[in-house]
Amino acid sequence: MSAIQKLKSANEYGKYICVGLDTDPKKLPPHLYSLKKPVIEFNKKIIESTKNAAAAYKLNLAFYETEGITGLENLEETLSIIPDNILTIADGKRGDIGNTSSLYARSIFEHFKFDSATLNPYMRQDSLEPFLAYKEKLNFILALTSNEGSADFQKQPLKSGNFLYQDVIKKIHNWNKNSNCGIVFGATNLTELRENIDLIDYLPMLIPGVGAQGGSLQDITQTLFVANKYSFLINVSRGIIQKSLGEDFEEAAKNELLNMNQTIAQLRQN
Amino acid sequence: MSAIQKLKSANEYGKYICVGLDTDPKKLPPHLYSLKKPVIEFNKKIIESTKNAAAAYKLNLAFYETEGITGLENLEETLSIIPDNILTIADGKRGDIGNTSSLYARSIFEHFKFDSATLNPYMRQDSLEPFLAYKEKLNFILALTSNEGSADFQKQPLKSGNFLYQDVIKKIHNWNKNSNCGIVFGATNLTELRENIDLIDYLPMLIPGVGAQGGSLQDITQTLFVANKYSFLINVSRGIIQKSLGEDFEEAAKNELLNMNQTIAQLRQN
Repeated sequence: MSAIQKLKSANEYGKYICVGLDTDPKKLPPHLYSLKKPVIEFNKKIIESTKNAAAAYKLNLAFYETEGITGLENLEETLSIIPDNILTIADGKRGDIGNTSSLYARSIFEHFKFDSATLNPYMRQDSLEPFLAYKEKLNFILALTSNEGSADFQKQPLKSGNFLYQDVIKKIHNWNKNSNCGIVFGATNLTELRENIDLIDYLPMLIPGVGAQGGSLQDITQTLFVANKYSFLINVSRGIIQKSLGEDFEEAAKNELLNMNQTIAQLRQN
Repeated sequence: MSAIQKLKSANEYGKYICVGLDTDPKKLPPHLYSLKKPVIEFNKKIIESTKNAAAAYKLNLAFYETEGITGLENLEETLSIIPDNILTIADGKRGDIGNTSSLYARSIFEHFKFDSATLNPYMRQDSLEPFLAYKEKLNFILALTSNEGSADFQKQPLKSGNFLYQDVIKKIHNWNKNSNCGIVFGATNLTELRENIDLIDYLPMLIPGVGAQGGSLQDITQTLFVANKYSFLINVSRGIIQKSLGEDFEEAAKNELLNMNQTIAQLRQN
């Protein structure tokens, strides 16, 4: 199944929440530290308890790279546990000159076999092309991010009259020849989402920033459904996987995910 | 020794060339493939033959990540071979929300013990702060890159009258409270370098794009010396490490580096 098919299939079944497996090796439930591979034990239980309700899994590469070789072993093992029909996203926000981006793309799509990647557009088209050449994959390109710092740069007004992030979205439409581009749009930018919903148009969206960062699941989802936009993922990391740090962590994660799905289901019917 | 001390010490001795260990596992001299660890054998010989003349070594992380765990083993082993007094740069162009950037910084500066990193400013200050908090390290932030794509984004005119990359350079001066910021400025942008030399001021520079990408070593170096700018590194990757793909590869690399140092020495005296 191509990446976009996995996304659409999840969305059809009312699944919109991407579970962020941003597993900080230093912030696990304490009882796991007596085990041999605490990160793997944690991820395995989270995946087991959420796989029927999750639309996708996003693995932030930083959380694995921080442990070097051990971290990459954890990354590989985690990927092998995720069921084949669920979309996997390598969140690395990569972007470099062409020959270097080719190697990142090879690493993410061929070595680790992720379905999808997040990319940074600062170095523009030639830095993204090696990723866009993989027709069956899906590339979420940063447009407007969820952090505070996004304000003083991505929201810079250009001479042309657009804001910088709007210019990026326009360019993404041009780059989308293989129908394998999406955008990252932070949930903390609700006003901008409403103002740019037509510009975003059919591009699949990956939306971080709900929960710990302050974005509202309800507001974002409602805005998207009212606009008849159905191809999207709302990423929640800490809000799900760190819901409890007790022995009930996997139950707590599952219940939180089910609550979120319930909220979305009600908005979808209205 | 702090990163900035390593840089200044190299520059004092007339060393300005950073050797890019962008070792593509698929493009090694053919005779190495019969060995057990071809990448390590290659890097070891290149470091051995260039260490007395190199100002720094830059390791582009993509070239190691592309092989997953084996790649990270190669990365660690390569770092262990580089003499302690020579600056090492992790070229990963990282940048993410604060808590994620903390983990990248921990990986690059604590786990792998690099002296320095390249960073992408698209997500702005809060995404860079975890790196800037390491006072003894050096952070080269992308201002104007060497690829063609830089033209239609980094060179966007802003409403304020600046180009985007100029706004980035101004911001870097503000972020430089620990005197541990530098900029990446592509050698293919000679005109812009001349026009912005006063704006860049004392910020250390990492200059890619000489050689395979078309930038001129002579023009760049002359411009910097004429402007009395002495804290910089000119990165050359393929131009040195792939100068020969024969059995003489390390000799060829060394000779090319010595030629470049000679060119620079002549310009410095004028």
